[in-house]
Amino acid sequence: MRGFVTDPAGQAGLRLADDLPEPEPAAGEFLLEVRGYAINPGEVGLIARRPNGWRPGQDVTGVVLRAAADGSGPPVGSRVAAVVDWESWAERVAVPSGWAAVLDDRVSFAQAAAIPCAGLAALRTLRYGGAVLGRDVLVTGATGGTGQFSVQLAVLSGARVTALVSGPQRVDLARELGAHRVLTSLEDDTVGRFDLVLDGVAGPTVAQAARRLKPEGTLVVYGGGTGSTVEPRDLYLNGVANGRLILGFIGILPHETKGEDIAIVADLVAEGRVRPLIGWQEDWTRTPDAFDALAKRAIRGRAVLLREP
Amino acid sequence: MRGFVTDPAGQAGLRLADDLPEPEPAAGEFLLEVRGYAINPGEVGLIARRPNGWRPGQDVTGVVLRAAADGSGPPVGSRVAAVVDWESWAERVAVPSGWAAVLDDRVSFAQAAAIPCAGLAALRTLRYGGAVLGRDVLVTGATGGTGQFSVQLAVLSGARVTALVSGPQRVDLARELGAHRVLTSLEDDTVGRFDLVLDGVAGPTVAQAARRLKPEGTLVVYGGGTGSTVEPRDLYLNGVANGRLILGFIGILPHETKGEDIAIVADLVAEGRVRPLIGWQEDWTRTPDAFDALAKRAIRGRAVLLREP
Repeated sequence: MRGFVTDPAGQAGLRLADDLPEPEPAAGEFLLEVRGYAINPGEVGLIARRPNGWRPGQDVTGVVLRAAADGSGPPVGSRVAAVVDWESWAERVAVPSGWAAVLDDRVSFAQAAAIPCAGLAALRTLRYGGAVLGRDVLVTGATGGTGQFSVQLAVLSGARVTALVSGPQRVDLARELGAHRVLTSLEDDTVGRFDLVLDGVAGPTVAQAARRLKPEGTLVVYGGGTGSTVEPRDLYLNGVANGRLILGFIGILPHETKGEDIAIVADLVAEGRVRPLIGWQEDWTRTPDAFDALAKRAIRGRAVLLREP
Repeated sequence: MRGFVTDPAGQAGLRLADDLPEPEPAAGEFLLEVRGYAINPGEVGLIARRPNGWRPGQDVTGVVLRAAADGSGPPVGSRVAAVVDWESWAERVAVPSGWAAVLDDRVSFAQAAAIPCAGLAALRTLRYGGAVLGRDVLVTGATGGTGQFSVQLAVLSGARVTALVSGPQRVDLARELGAHRVLTSLEDDTVGRFDLVLDGVAGPTVAQAARRLKPEGTLVVYGGGTGSTVEPRDLYLNGVANGRLILGFIGILPHETKGEDIAIVADLVAEGRVRPLIGWQEDWTRTPDAFDALAKRAIRGRAVLLREP
């Protein structure tokens, strides 16, 4: 079986191997024929930390080749979107039954590939804001892989959505996603305050956004928060009354409802209410090229790889 | 009327003036004969920032001299504990009706003086943990002004309470408050993880405690957080899954229910289920001496001033 393994000598630290063992699904896992996947920013770091023969890949979409032995999950022939812990950048992969959503026919494999990790992160971070109808939500990195979903899901939830983008070249795109207001900086007195901030940008943006919380407001840092620092005293002096910061593994946990949550986003895509923004789409054998494109920060939206069987 | 005003030339930046105007309560305020109050750590900073003729004092207990003109609040003769924004270190003070709790006869003025700000902070920070029955709660500064209430209220809520104290000389006291375990450091592999951390110590303790959160655990920083820094990446790398930090004005907000919340703590004191730890108790004219004692960090529990009419 073919699939990508880490190899320090390869482009982007990857090599397409052709002698991989077939997946051996556990009782609660089905066997999936991979038709596509997307690249997540965190995978760059994972590949660097596991350089020799590790098999990356968390997002995946495809067709069920063999149902789970314990009877759970989708039947043979189902089109699904799913997350796995690893090894999805291959021809076939074993998928835990509860981590997959069956796809409506209206969702393409390219769209489905864009959904799992980013959709989970966007949906689950949004939930920390509770009922956001009529409330002010700030999404940083609003045209990025997860941010694009955050903007659209927040708009669908009735929030007044402010998008923060990295420069004027992304303003129109953020408006197309439905953002009611688009900013390129938080360092301006007119920015106002927010009930909920969803941040995947990290760095100094986190502290800037934290200062913009309303009383009882919530800041969710879902991207790992590299290079960011929050000083409680700073928030106190900026009048952030009882602000709440959520930090950690928000897209990943809880495990049990991953499939259900992917289905929520995928069904919105089927209905045309969420439109995954795909900024780069190629045959899966070009996976290393996706990293080069991501490194240049040239992609607006998801980098998606597709595979024809 | 006599009362303390700020004066850079006075001991602890204070002077006991004897020519202050009588309070003029608004329609929703009653007039209180002051019988006692406690010192809060934040007041040191407030006095320094408002050095000339400002009138400090947030905690207060006493007897109602004149009920509120709008009919709200306690009747004449009621013994109450209350918070005010300022000016309680005097013979009389105007108190918003909703910011006071009527005292059971079993609660002394000394006990009542110890309750308002610290009791509010302890009760309200604890609520951020939700249902803590059987859960692990860490209280830092556990024998301090607020921490003593935090330990007792968490124990009464059924939590397994770990107390962090500044040294071995405070271990026995923390146990007397009901703590199930007492630590003098968080830098030990056996510390474990907590569902809820209540921190009024600030400084490096905040980041240390944050690393000790369980999945979905909550860290509440109520003391202003001076000198503390939290790095989202640090928590991420320490496996703190979806940890929650609460920062701000937790004891102060919301305003509307201050009286109700003070009553909850005061009634527990009346029932003998909470015992305010009073580490220093003198006539109110010695208020400046309390600051000297606090500066030496020699007080375990509240510093309370009492006034005989």
